[in-house]
Amino acid sequence: MTAAPAYAELCRAHLRLHRYNHLAAIVGWDRNAMMPPGGIVARAQAEAELNTLIHRSRTDPRLADWLRAAEDEPLDDIQRANLREIRRDWRNANALPESLVEAKTLAGAKCEHAWRSQRPANDWPGFLANFREVVRIAREEAQRLADDTGLSRYDALVDRFEPGMRAAGIDRIFSGIKQWLPDLIARVAAGQRPAPAGAPAAPFPVAAQRELSLALMKMLAFDFESGRLDESAHPFTGGVPEDVRLTTRYREDDFAQSLMGTIHETGHARYEQQLPRAWLGQPIGVARSFGIHESQSLSFEMQLARSRGFVGLLAPMLAEHFGDQRAFAPDNLHRLLTRVEPGLIRVDADEVTYPAHIILRYEIERALIEGEIEPEDIPALWDEKMDALLGLDTRGNYKDGCMQDVHWTEGAFGYFPSYTLGAMYAAQWFAAMRRAVPELDARIAAGDFAPVFDWLGANIWSQASRWETTELVERASGEALNAEYLRAHLERRYLGAG
Amino acid sequence: MTAAPAYAELCRAHLRLHRYNHLAAIVGWDRNAMMPPGGIVARAQAEAELNTLIHRSRTDPRLADWLRAAEDEPLDDIQRANLREIRRDWRNANALPESLVEAKTLAGAKCEHAWRSQRPANDWPGFLANFREVVRIAREEAQRLADDTGLSRYDALVDRFEPGMRAAGIDRIFSGIKQWLPDLIARVAAGQRPAPAGAPAAPFPVAAQRELSLALMKMLAFDFESGRLDESAHPFTGGVPEDVRLTTRYREDDFAQSLMGTIHETGHARYEQQLPRAWLGQPIGVARSFGIHESQSLSFEMQLARSRGFVGLLAPMLAEHFGDQRAFAPDNLHRLLTRVEPGLIRVDADEVTYPAHIILRYEIERALIEGEIEPEDIPALWDEKMDALLGLDTRGNYKDGCMQDVHWTEGAFGYFPSYTLGAMYAAQWFAAMRRAVPELDARIAAGDFAPVFDWLGANIWSQASRWETTELVERASGEALNAEYLRAHLERRYLGAG
Repeated sequence: MTAAPAYAELCRAHLRLHRYNHLAAIVGWDRNAMMPPGGIVARAQAEAELNTLIHRSRTDPRLADWLRAAEDEPLDDIQRANLREIRRDWRNANALPESLVEAKTLAGAKCEHAWRSQRPANDWPGFLANFREVVRIAREEAQRLADDTGLSRYDALVDRFEPGMRAAGIDRIFSGIKQWLPDLIARVAAGQRPAPAGAPAAPFPVAAQRELSLALMKMLAFDFESGRLDESAHPFTGGVPEDVRLTTRYREDDFAQSLMGTIHETGHARYEQQLPRAWLGQPIGVARSFGIHESQSLSFEMQLARSRGFVGLLAPMLAEHFGDQRAFAPDNLHRLLTRVEPGLIRVDADEVTYPAHIILRYEIERALIEGEIEPEDIPALWDEKMDALLGLDTRGNYKDGCMQDVHWTEGAFGYFPSYTLGAMYAAQWFAAMRRAVPELDARIAAGDFAPVFDWLGANIWSQASRWETTELVERASGEALNAEYLRAHLERRYLGAG
Repeated sequence: MTAAPAYAELCRAHLRLHRYNHLAAIVGWDRNAMMPPGGIVARAQAEAELNTLIHRSRTDPRLADWLRAAEDEPLDDIQRANLREIRRDWRNANALPESLVEAKTLAGAKCEHAWRSQRPANDWPGFLANFREVVRIAREEAQRLADDTGLSRYDALVDRFEPGMRAAGIDRIFSGIKQWLPDLIARVAAGQRPAPAGAPAAPFPVAAQRELSLALMKMLAFDFESGRLDESAHPFTGGVPEDVRLTTRYREDDFAQSLMGTIHETGHARYEQQLPRAWLGQPIGVARSFGIHESQSLSFEMQLARSRGFVGLLAPMLAEHFGDQRAFAPDNLHRLLTRVEPGLIRVDADEVTYPAHIILRYEIERALIEGEIEPEDIPALWDEKMDALLGLDTRGNYKDGCMQDVHWTEGAFGYFPSYTLGAMYAAQWFAAMRRAVPELDARIAAGDFAPVFDWLGANIWSQASRWETTELVERASGEALNAEYLRAHLERRYLGAG
């Protein structure tokens, strides 16, 4: 008989949930990467049944009793951390009535479905008709979460993606970035050769791109015994830690998309693969947050793969897979892969202009959720901020403006900051690495990534959800999140000799 | 308010089960066709959790009350048929205590795991040590099912694979086959050229075999909007009717394996794809039985694809995919694909000698389950029957004898008869087709398979589980199962001009 019977019950319930989530991860991957179109209706019904089951498990009334009782049980630090994560999941699952969750799903699905044709048609009024309901429900969701947690409405939404992160902190960081980013972009643009660097000649056959992707994954120590590479319309990392399903997509006219996409996803994948095996199935055994996850993909894609040293390794691999081209010379390749150009589309943005896209979205969605603006105010704000931050005119261009992302369409407010939090964390990790291993860049250039993997392994991967995010960051890098590392990284790479 | 509330509850419960089974089908396909080896432990745990959930749904105590109450509700014929199938499933699920199901799974898994190395090592005593427990549990299972149903022990096992089929009927049919089969094999062997016909030259590249497989599936009207082709170690047809997952395997030295394997599985696949969409999710919406399913794969592989007319269509396709070879001339190709040769291995057997392999297994497993023989008696019986039926000496060769199949290893007794039932049904279907469409063979030779698909569609596919098997057979072909059609088919093809 255990001395902590309520805690033991909670762990049993969590383990069952963990296994249901495994099934959801695999059928979800299958839907995106394998399923033929005719399967969609039956699959949606089967997945809805599984989601109902998962929701019922997370809202089992006995959990509340066990959570209360477990508080008074003799638990060690690890068990306390598990209890903290179980309570977080319980709170997230129980804060919202089922009817609201259903209404949100329906309104999001309706808006997203119509958006697929409204976006290419630049139909903002049509979009607005559905989007108003999405915003109305998101505000109600935020209010209920706020009532439940004592947080502000927007904070309560952010907390679901980035536990512990508050708008006040994001404000402080993003205000700081706004001080130096437009100037940095201008200085980079001024120092950059005006014409594009020597462009590689297409086509790049899909089979060769796939071989290159596999070679890169191998180089980055992806474990093919516990994962695989496939294709999907939108690249993602799915599956489970023991069996990570990574996808990419190939365009025959552009090798860089699958190249950098695969490296990005491999960063996500290695985090998952390297979560401590002993903790899998325990609440603390999962990745910490969206922002920390993005810090892994950006550590790989931005910090590592766009460094001069790594590009020097890439160059001969490109020649090997696509045939030798002068454009693949390391210097030229580096110029191609680090070209900075303000553009309308977030997902196509380089790492210098990317934070501007996020800050703009953050400022708008926060005001929207807090009720300071209404959905119809968005385009004017978008135009104003795109002009201020990136000097671009977006007037009347909704499809490449405020209608470009799926996030708001589906009601996922509070998610966007994670992208730039991830970029800042990644810069902070690499600064810590360089302090620990001063010869880091030389090691990378020599194809020795052990210092990178060792540092990430010890400080991030092996820690899973053992600590709250803020504590994880301080333990890993010796200080709280600090945007100066991102600034220093960008200045070094885009203005200096880095 | 429905006039049949208990029936409505049963349908709701069944629909939920149907969706859980969808999840099980997809993750099961994934495990066999996609999953890397490192995923196996976590997947086994997730699938076990799903199986527990499915078992709990099938044994929900409320089902018994609803089944009783539904009996007295006003139901139409279709609803009565649904109720019959729900009761069958309920009875199957509830006849066995959970402890016995678990013991069977464990003993089967242990025996199967050891068998993988014991078989190549020809280690019968080692196998016997585990197999005794598998047999002991199977006998207990059969006894409990017999107590529950009033059937004999072996009948109760067969009934799970082939509802309504009894050993007395199988005995009658197989005794009949034993009267003419050895003589037929001898006559075919005597009339066949002694040397192998002109053999095609390997290798046959995997990519070309895959293209040929896809072309054949297309020719056989497989719906790629609702299914796909992949590879697995053991070919199978999985997934769900709206999304059928067909697998095959490729050997570069032998194109016929993937060719005929793909055609075989396409027969299974089309049955699934053509089940009535309006019935999917209802109990009568599933395929009728293992034997009827096998009748579809053998209709495609044996009746259709080894006919002279079809081989005439195959010949240019082989030349197109593998380059022109004299061996691909239609006459030679037909000789290759209809060569008869008694051999030790069931899965490699031609359609003439195949029933001998099944009759032998049936006679042994029936005696084993009824307690007339013990596991250690199997090898001697195997030797005696292989000599009598096929004139082959198997003494001391366990690995190519009684240790060759996975079925007994896992405790799946009562399954083997389905293979030959399927072959007999298929011959009976084609005889009925020829009565309805006298010019059938000319139509097939011209590449017009509509008469085949129309007949199977109207008589088998569209009927799903609407009728008990015996009624399905009589409605489709006008009479009960009759082995004379198989005999006539084999004599026509292998001794005559067919």
